[in-house]
Amino acid sequence: MSTPLSDPLIIAGKTYRSRLLVGTGKYKDLDETARAIAASGAEIVTIAVRRTNIGQNRDEPNILDVLPPERYTILPNTAGCYDVETAVRTCRLARELLDGHNLVKLEVLGDEKTLFPNVLETLKAAEILVKDGFAVMVYTNDDPVVARELEAIGCVAVMPLAAPIGSGLGIRNPLNILTIVENAKVPILVDAGVGTASHAAQAMELGCDGVLMNTAIAAAKHPVLMASAMRKAVEAGREAFLAGRMPPRRFASASSPLEGLFF
Amino acid sequence: MSTPLSDPLIIAGKTYRSRLLVGTGKYKDLDETARAIAASGAEIVTIAVRRTNIGQNRDEPNILDVLPPERYTILPNTAGCYDVETAVRTCRLARELLDGHNLVKLEVLGDEKTLFPNVLETLKAAEILVKDGFAVMVYTNDDPVVARELEAIGCVAVMPLAAPIGSGLGIRNPLNILTIVENAKVPILVDAGVGTASHAAQAMELGCDGVLMNTAIAAAKHPVLMASAMRKAVEAGREAFLAGRMPPRRFASASSPLEGLFF
Amino acid sequence: MSTPLSDPLIIAGKTYRSRLLVGTGKYKDLDETARAIAASGAEIVTIAVRRTNIGQNRDEPNILDVLPPERYTILPNTAGCYDVETAVRTCRLARELLDGHNLVKLEVLGDEKTLFPNVLETLKAAEILVKDGFAVMVYTNDDPVVARELEAIGCVAVMPLAAPIGSGLGIRNPLNILTIVENAKVPILVDAGVGTASHAAQAMELGCDGVLMNTAIAAAKHPVLMASAMRKAVEAGREAFLAGRMPPRRFASASSPLEGLFF
Amino acid sequence: MSTPLSDPLIIAGKTYRSRLLVGTGKYKDLDETARAIAASGAEIVTIAVRRTNIGQNRDEPNILDVLPPERYTILPNTAGCYDVETAVRTCRLARELLDGHNLVKLEVLGDEKTLFPNVLETLKAAEILVKDGFAVMVYTNDDPVVARELEAIGCVAVMPLAAPIGSGLGIRNPLNILTIVENAKVPILVDAGVGTASHAAQAMELGCDGVLMNTAIAAAKHPVLMASAMRKAVEAGREAFLAGRMPPRRFASASSPLEGLFF
Repeated sequence: MSTPLSDPLIIAGKTYRSRLLVGTGKYKDLDETARAIAASGAEIVTIAVRRTNIGQNRDEPNILDVLPPERYTILPNTAGCYDVETAVRTCRLARELLDGHNLVKLEVLGDEKTLFPNVLETLKAAEILVKDGFAVMVYTNDDPVVARELEAIGCVAVMPLAAPIGSGLGIRNPLNILTIVENAKVPILVDAGVGTASHAAQAMELGCDGVLMNTAIAAAKHPVLMASAMRKAVEAGREAFLAGRMPPRRFASASSPLEGLFF
Repeated sequence: MSTPLSDPLIIAGKTYRSRLLVGTGKYKDLDETARAIAASGAEIVTIAVRRTNIGQNRDEPNILDVLPPERYTILPNTAGCYDVETAVRTCRLARELLDGHNLVKLEVLGDEKTLFPNVLETLKAAEILVKDGFAVMVYTNDDPVVARELEAIGCVAVMPLAAPIGSGLGIRNPLNILTIVENAKVPILVDAGVGTASHAAQAMELGCDGVLMNTAIAAAKHPVLMASAMRKAVEAGREAFLAGRMPPRRFASASSPLEGLFF
Repeated sequence: MSTPLSDPLIIAGKTYRSRLLVGTGKYKDLDETARAIAASGAEIVTIAVRRTNIGQNRDEPNILDVLPPERYTILPNTAGCYDVETAVRTCRLARELLDGHNLVKLEVLGDEKTLFPNVLETLKAAEILVKDGFAVMVYTNDDPVVARELEAIGCVAVMPLAAPIGSGLGIRNPLNILTIVENAKVPILVDAGVGTASHAAQAMELGCDGVLMNTAIAAAKHPVLMASAMRKAVEAGREAFLAGRMPPRRFASASSPLEGLFF
Repeated sequence: MSTPLSDPLIIAGKTYRSRLLVGTGKYKDLDETARAIAASGAEIVTIAVRRTNIGQNRDEPNILDVLPPERYTILPNTAGCYDVETAVRTCRLARELLDGHNLVKLEVLGDEKTLFPNVLETLKAAEILVKDGFAVMVYTNDDPVVARELEAIGCVAVMPLAAPIGSGLGIRNPLNILTIVENAKVPILVDAGVGTASHAAQAMELGCDGVLMNTAIAAAKHPVLMASAMRKAVEAGREAFLAGRMPPRRFASASSPLEGLFF
């Protein structure tokens, strides 16, 4: 029924069956982290290098012990970075700790209240990282022009927010996401703002190539069950996109177009 | 990961694993009908008795040949009925043709343009059918007071519309559906108006016990794939409901409640 | 600039310049009531007969002292009635107290939690009142079939809710209101659920003939200023409706229709 | 009733009664332009210098003949500019033609399809213009971090889009607009995307200081009447904002908060 093999997600030349990417923050403990991530079916797991031990502290538990890089593609991210230099340095540290692994998720935040990206600093950092040989997946706002610039710089995936990080509000501006998808040649993944399963399905129905989330799973009452829900929601949304939904109309009758209406 | 066995849908005393109910109209041919229904995982299939042969015409193909009652719970419906008498007569005909099977879906329509129910006639017909021994699942508008009346009459499930039949617009008034769910002791299933997978997931996230659809699957470009999408979406939405989603808030920070905002 | 004289609201044969109808509940005192209603420009003021003294209690202050029937069309309503008999009796009492004045607003509520109408009881009461010579303006849900029935019975205006009474949520289902307007020959006025000025404007843009509100004005921090806001919003919405808005489209370019999109 | 004098809009030190700013494009002829602008009550009128004659062509009709600078504050804009240099040059040309008048509206567009701003080029151009002594009102996307940067550079007003220019879709992301308003010390005016009166009212209810529009008036069937509608809508929205709307809630009862719900 499912179509993972015939419809893979390809990022930086590597093929994935799952279109759900997850983070590792906010879980009760490492055991819950591992079980939720397993239930999500995710193959790419993003890790906040500034908050999580991937080898910086030799004497403390290493998250890679429960998320072995043989099984998961580790995606180090720059969460908590507010300027170009810190973000670039964080990516280089991650590459070193991960033996040359060059896939990163870049985020350069604009302020602590909204956690919106600073797109200017993001563009500068992306340019430096691409030139330095990184495969850059990049968190951005939902502005189609900014997304196009990030693609032009050479980012391997563009990741617009659905809503503010950690808000759970769902896709605030579906038309912007749709425009970004229509314009893009690289994968577009919604990153940040998803709160429940239907949000993830909607992102995929808009044509996104994947969804990245953390709080929506980790802050649910039952994270492992929510991880399973998200796995199915992403698959459902992808299949609905590929299946080609019926056009919406006011009524079943042939003569009930929606043109000119927009509520 | 999934929880079908521990979380069954119970209608009229019978237990179901699937919470997706489907119709049989608008498919290309009977083969596509059968394949799509199989892909949906549905265990309850609704059939418009006035439009579909379940034995009325002995010489024509019988839909029960591809939907054997041993495998599927057949749910005869009164689509196309605009008054109490026709609706009641249609249910009695179905019971006769199906050897005393007394589960029916009642719909009494109000007009041909909107296909909205006529709730007055629906209430009258429901009362007659319940007294006559039918187990009545009933299509209605999204008015919480009407839903409560239908439950009080003895209907075994109440099925508010998400949007007009065949519109594919999704849930027009989620707060009304939520209120109906909160007030109910019988199963609440969204019936009519779902257009794509995220709509089905949202219905389940609101706490509905199931979703019934036909056009959303049959009128997709690839109905079998859409049927699979809907199966996963209903499961995703149910699991998300059970998992207990994170509360929405404007920002990740603790001090960003949404109270008083409502966009 | 405005067009009140050339574009009157006509209810039960009487002509009004203002399309904003207001209630009298929840104000700090009678003085604030009078000032807010004056600022609203309303010509029709609805009064809850079961809660407000219009002469039942000879020794107490009479609201008609600050809302003289020479200046305002008094619209007695049946707020707080949950059955046919009480509603009908309340209307007859009002007619007696108001010397034969036969314009009433009928509401028969379904429950105390939602304050949704009980449309069955409403239809029965409406039938009795119309036969008894009343000019009935009737509060109802947003079901187009129920609205049509109420018009068929002989109600002089049909008043669907935007959202639950006192909620301030705005128009929950604009497509239903639009359908009611399209089908109607009598005036359609949105009643209940408006919370702020843009809601009132939107109701008028959908083609409604007027808006009735109470809490949105009385429960604002500054009721008199909100009354002025609502007056302008209703005029703005009416003028925008008459002016014929530009069609929405995704982009300014000619080739950006919205057909098939519906967020 | 109204509060124009006690609640002025102040931009670059000058005081205005009207909070509605309008453009001059897309009208049938100059007479219609003049009548619509008069009906709008606007005191600030924006003119696309690259498309409209304000003196560049001595032998052709000059729009300032129908919009005398003694009566209107002329706001030259850089519509049609896609790079820093053209935008800056256009502003300087306008200043020259208008005898040193230094108030401009800067827009640097990102592409012809969406007409979204290019925020990077916009920031660069804004910086140059501010240093060159211009009072810059600036068109931008609805990103709160970009808005804050534009304010930090010294722009006198920040003008986020509601939706793409010429789309008439209304405010796509009210929470973003609200965040921009909350963070700002300079006036925030919604620019682009308003389609009808309720949209303008909503912008003001969010706390915006004003609204700028062109197509919504000029492309209405009756532009002069729509101009009047918009005038009233902006006043209505402003008054509603100042009046302090009732909090939305699910039901009138005290125990029906909306927290945790977000449809």
